[in-house]
Amino acid sequence: MWWEDDAVGFIDQRRLPHRFESERATTMIQVADAISGMAVLGAPTIGVMGSYGLALAAKNGDSLSDAYDLLLNTRPTAINLKVRLDEVMPAGSYTGSYVGSTTDSAAVLQAARAHDDAEVDAARSIGLHGASLLPHGGRVLTHCNAGWMAAQDWGPATSPIYAAAREGLSPFVWVSETGPRLQGARITAWEILNEGIDHRLIADGAGAQLMRQRLVGIVITGADRIAANGDTANKIGTYTHALAVGANGIPFYIAAPLTPFDRDTPDGESIPVEERDGDEVLFVEGLNDDGEVQRVRVPAHGTQAINPAFDVTPASFITGFITEVRVVPATAEGIAEAFERRPGSA
Amino acid sequence: MWWEDDAVGFIDQRRLPHRFESERATTMIQVADAISGMAVLGAPTIGVMGSYGLALAAKNGDSLSDAYDLLLNTRPTAINLKVRLDEVMPAGSYTGSYVGSTTDSAAVLQAARAHDDAEVDAARSIGLHGASLLPHGGRVLTHCNAGWMAAQDWGPATSPIYAAAREGLSPFVWVSETGPRLQGARITAWEILNEGIDHRLIADGAGAQLMRQRLVGIVITGADRIAANGDTANKIGTYTHALAVGANGIPFYIAAPLTPFDRDTPDGESIPVEERDGDEVLFVEGLNDDGEVQRVRVPAHGTQAINPAFDVTPASFITGFITEVRVVPATAEGIAEAFERRPGSA
Repeated sequence: MWWEDDAVGFIDQRRLPHRFESERATTMIQVADAISGMAVLGAPTIGVMGSYGLALAAKNGDSLSDAYDLLLNTRPTAINLKVRLDEVMPAGSYTGSYVGSTTDSAAVLQAARAHDDAEVDAARSIGLHGASLLPHGGRVLTHCNAGWMAAQDWGPATSPIYAAAREGLSPFVWVSETGPRLQGARITAWEILNEGIDHRLIADGAGAQLMRQRLVGIVITGADRIAANGDTANKIGTYTHALAVGANGIPFYIAAPLTPFDRDTPDGESIPVEERDGDEVLFVEGLNDDGEVQRVRVPAHGTQAINPAFDVTPASFITGFITEVRVVPATAEGIAEAFERRPGSA
Repeated sequence: MWWEDDAVGFIDQRRLPHRFESERATTMIQVADAISGMAVLGAPTIGVMGSYGLALAAKNGDSLSDAYDLLLNTRPTAINLKVRLDEVMPAGSYTGSYVGSTTDSAAVLQAARAHDDAEVDAARSIGLHGASLLPHGGRVLTHCNAGWMAAQDWGPATSPIYAAAREGLSPFVWVSETGPRLQGARITAWEILNEGIDHRLIADGAGAQLMRQRLVGIVITGADRIAANGDTANKIGTYTHALAVGANGIPFYIAAPLTPFDRDTPDGESIPVEERDGDEVLFVEGLNDDGEVQRVRVPAHGTQAINPAFDVTPASFITGFITEVRVVPATAEGIAEAFERRPGSA
């Protein structure tokens, strides 16, 4: 997203890849709706979007305390949102009672723009560090979208792939379609196609079989929250791939800036897992034969669905974390290093 | 399916659940098309359909040898088809050169009808044996469709659930949607809904998370082929669930008649895995808001897909096999017993 003419601009990701449309949010409520309605997706993007939401609240004279609460409750699992909101509040000097004042709106906006820039830099650095893990022609499997739609310009999980491609390493990508919302099929495949990188889309259930056939060299995904012990929450289906990685001796890296490392969450059991509307499982959107975007219902009327939006992968299944400072192993020492080098820790 | 008026009748499963339409095949070619085009699905159903295909060839005076070859090559992974075709050939006295003769068409038809009846009986028995594994209120996860569409009247994997429901055990079913063709969402959920059994549809990637949360008591799937060492081929995504079962200490049963136990396949590596058209991953069919069945393309134009239709679960992940004779453990002794009791073995 971007700040322009006193508004935050963003691509409505729900319409990708068939419609590439940008929207403008001029109020904090519009920002909250964009986050909870999944017009914007991906932990880093959501975090920056939240910062811009506070900037709009400050600009419009809304209570920053109310704005903070509303924005925080849009999505419970990704910790980036809370981190960024917390960082903005002191920057605007709203510690304590958090009652807003338009006089500080410039400071709030400045903090939001700094977050935006920081995520771009972090994603670029993650790419450079992560590319070192890819051999020439390396086959990467990724799940969901941790690409440039999810994190400013580069995307944590795709950034190493883009960096490798620019280094002439000819990476190949298996894109797991990522049910129920199919962000892999709709967004990641489209991003990678636009980057001119060779790839194939697969059903989520096919990843394990490809690993068993030794057709996957490395798995890289993003993260929505990393607990103090290294357990990692990410889009539903990630744990499934992690199990297959473990059974087949394939390295599994989480590509994430240091932001989602959350010292206040001791382990995976403590991470709240968002449960979303079952309609996301029942319906699929795509382009019909007439070139129109259409939503279709797959199962019979009467069928209900359960839709946990995230899952938790135990640290023992993770090889390492690709961060903006370096690749750290998912050992007690590596995880401790990530927490120590996290901005604001000490 | 059923035999009626010199034709084999069948439900076109591709149109379920939004259209329930029966078709008639009056030639072997039509039967082959129905199998390869996935109008009929499920190893037991495919096997019986193949038998009826030979019956039609015999009736129409086609070369049974050609019919055998054509039918055998429609689907490579499920062994039931080969077993049933092989069984029909001797019944019609076509051993050796396999040159057809209409004079034996009654014998061929008789063999096909016997297969049909045998699968119904086997599926019913599987239900009675399998129900003993379900406690009151037991939560079963199943993948793909091994219900009454896949195997005459009862379905191997759903038969224990139906039997448990009739015994008043109030089973609950997690239905994994089963990408890319979504047979779980389209067929299994619809069958279970019609049986009045409580259930919820889930994305394939959510199964592991539910197991981690102890919300799944047992996993039961069907099988397309069981190798001599117990490795089992089934619909893509089964291995994924098996990995989650193994990591979370949940029992995993394969419900299958003895037909797919294939002594000639030593292990999972030897099972040919059918790769199907990538379009099955790119497109989804469902009901649009106007109540019309419509196909939509999910990813951007230009995205290509790879579509392995089956995967192989190593025997070490399997707790046992629910067969028509009894539930045997997936140990060397249990597997040996299944092979010994298989009709025609000796």
